[in-house]
Amino acid sequence: MDVIDVIKAKRDGHELTDEQIAFAIRSYTEEQMGDDQCAALLMAIFLNGMSRRETVTWTNAMIGSGTRMDFSGLGGPTADKHSTGGVGDKISLPLGPLVAAFGVRVPMLSGRGLGHTGGTLDKLESIAGFNVNVDSERLRAILTDVGVAIAAAGSDLAPADKRIYALRDVTGTVDSVPLIASSIMSKKIAAGADSLVLDVKVGSGAFMKDLEQAKILARTMVDLGNDAGVETSAVLTDMSTPLGRTIGNALEIEETREILAGGGPEDVVTLTVEFAERMLAAAGKTDVDVRAALQDGRAMDRWRRMVSAQGGDPDATLPTARHQHDILAEEDGYLGTLDALALGVASWRLGAGRARKEDAVQMGAGVRLHKTLGEQVRKGDPIATLYTDEESRFEPALDSALPGIVITQEQPSAREVVLATVEKQN
Amino acid sequence: MDVIDVIKAKRDGHELTDEQIAFAIRSYTEEQMGDDQCAALLMAIFLNGMSRRETVTWTNAMIGSGTRMDFSGLGGPTADKHSTGGVGDKISLPLGPLVAAFGVRVPMLSGRGLGHTGGTLDKLESIAGFNVNVDSERLRAILTDVGVAIAAAGSDLAPADKRIYALRDVTGTVDSVPLIASSIMSKKIAAGADSLVLDVKVGSGAFMKDLEQAKILARTMVDLGNDAGVETSAVLTDMSTPLGRTIGNALEIEETREILAGGGPEDVVTLTVEFAERMLAAAGKTDVDVRAALQDGRAMDRWRRMVSAQGGDPDATLPTARHQHDILAEEDGYLGTLDALALGVASWRLGAGRARKEDAVQMGAGVRLHKTLGEQVRKGDPIATLYTDEESRFEPALDSALPGIVITQEQPSAREVVLATVEKQN
Repeated sequence: MDVIDVIKAKRDGHELTDEQIAFAIRSYTEEQMGDDQCAALLMAIFLNGMSRRETVTWTNAMIGSGTRMDFSGLGGPTADKHSTGGVGDKISLPLGPLVAAFGVRVPMLSGRGLGHTGGTLDKLESIAGFNVNVDSERLRAILTDVGVAIAAAGSDLAPADKRIYALRDVTGTVDSVPLIASSIMSKKIAAGADSLVLDVKVGSGAFMKDLEQAKILARTMVDLGNDAGVETSAVLTDMSTPLGRTIGNALEIEETREILAGGGPEDVVTLTVEFAERMLAAAGKTDVDVRAALQDGRAMDRWRRMVSAQGGDPDATLPTARHQHDILAEEDGYLGTLDALALGVASWRLGAGRARKEDAVQMGAGVRLHKTLGEQVRKGDPIATLYTDEESRFEPALDSALPGIVITQEQPSAREVVLATVEKQN
Repeated sequence: MDVIDVIKAKRDGHELTDEQIAFAIRSYTEEQMGDDQCAALLMAIFLNGMSRRETVTWTNAMIGSGTRMDFSGLGGPTADKHSTGGVGDKISLPLGPLVAAFGVRVPMLSGRGLGHTGGTLDKLESIAGFNVNVDSERLRAILTDVGVAIAAAGSDLAPADKRIYALRDVTGTVDSVPLIASSIMSKKIAAGADSLVLDVKVGSGAFMKDLEQAKILARTMVDLGNDAGVETSAVLTDMSTPLGRTIGNALEIEETREILAGGGPEDVVTLTVEFAERMLAAAGKTDVDVRAALQDGRAMDRWRRMVSAQGGDPDATLPTARHQHDILAEEDGYLGTLDALALGVASWRLGAGRARKEDAVQMGAGVRLHKTLGEQVRKGDPIATLYTDEESRFEPALDSALPGIVITQEQPSAREVVLATVEKQN
């Protein structure tokens, strides 16, 4: 078999055989196939697509390039959740401890932020001492003792995906449903949980802007998970406006603590509860009062134990930024637009995110919202506060934020947080 | 401007702007754009095409990556010819001297063979002492004195094409009309002749198997040439069976001498005369008796002077192969098939061609045809003789040749050598 023949087959619109896909992924992993050849193949896939079978095989080949974790030794069900990434999306943080409070183990292997969407690991590192680098043995120990751990994915989880993802990033081949789905699912299937709930974000601040496209992606991922023996479903959720009232690393930890203390913004609570119920149901636990565990401190207790187990101080004072700047309402009315992308980019420009993988992030930087979409405002009311350690960052951040904040005279219709769900097909 | 945006624009089916194309070629030449990115762009071009304007701009950008030669100082018209490559295609060798005999200068910058099609430079090097590496100053001197030179193209002729061609070769992006046309034409336009005749080969032994596709390629190249101020036309010629009676380096020089002595196979003579008339007409010389110059020694005289000027001995004995093997007719009938690809691959396997650029070629290896397509044969008649320096090469060569030689009971209809022509559009 020759890699050029595989490229030509996909170029000419043929379905690749299982052998051709396995050969391509193996050749690329073993550096028999060059970046140039893989880039040509990826563009041919981008333009000519992959069938469900091809996508399954491609995903399995990427899983097979590394190790698939196995938590069956823990003697109980495990559940995981993945978000395609949004602005102010801290759901994983209260969710993991909440689910663990019901006896379902949650091994969450997560990533860092890149661009305007934040990363769960970056947020956790704003807690003094918190260590996201946990080896496999320690991970099992924490899961046994505490029931939840949120850690960096090891380099042996779908290593082929890591190289292919980096290549897609520089060759204009990111936005392809089979490539996105196989990239996400190869890592999540390899991560070894029994069940998985996907949060597919839709809207300006998400990677998917369009609900119909997002449904296709969700269906593809749900099928991939279930085909691989992982009980998988997806919830499509709104990302036209930020989730909750904070964007940025320490700011989102602060809001996480509020949620775990039984408070916090309703949209974050709603989604946290929705995902917890799905994860528990997949583990056979229905008829559970999830909200009660947020109210009575059981979820908070798990959170504190997890933070401690990973070296952090649950009572640590969170880092704050050196400078702050308020955005005030310029007229009376309703907050008609509070755009997720505009505010996500602003937070990123304030220092909360990174432009390149090797960049550092500012733990205290970000945006706090005082008003949310649809709320009434009066001229002079503070709508948002921007935080950064470097004053020079306010100007570029405001350039992004201000056009995303629009006051209207009519009250906009209420926002739906959950847009659709995609369930396992029988 | 960002190279990823250029890739995405072509990926999404947009026409690239002149600025985007110039930027992409410049970025790739200056190694700002990686092979992976260029490969993705080439696959997007392969699948989404390029408009006439895009192809013109792409070609000009490749020309602009190096030097465009200028023969205006010679004080007379110059003419060039290019073939897309065939089996037994030695037309350039008698053609250049023939045209020069009428006072039109012929600077032919040529290439080496790769795969089953032979290279003009390899053929010439079977003449003892012949030097294909002629610098620009010496080239002008030979053109002034003799009127014709056939030399290796310098590395500063469309260097971007050289890199892009190598990349296309390994990424399955060779067979694209705009990419083929721009590759050929960037080199031929940069080579600086006033006029150009293209021999677009069609059939099993050619790169283009299909006449309609070949017409599209020819039209694209003819337009590109004329748009760049080079008077260009194309002749589509049959390559379903080898041209002439010899395939292989020294064997083709032998046949070239026959043509220049007023003899030789009629198909080779026909095409040589057709191309000579076109090249002379483009230089304003009509009403010339081209065949006469083959008969009366004028073309032979130019050939001998060119060989001498390039360091060769016009009277040199040509190298012969150590071993030979006859293929005999197995029954009475007509030669119904004499397949160009089968015999081209056989000649290549006998040692006349190379598999990789760095391979050496055997000067005496190849195939001599005793019968041509449509001729009557009797059982036991020799149809072809194979030549090689290594006896072990006969078996693989026969594996290719024999299925391409078919004896039929009905006489096949006569072969047309010229299939179509494509002229300059006004």
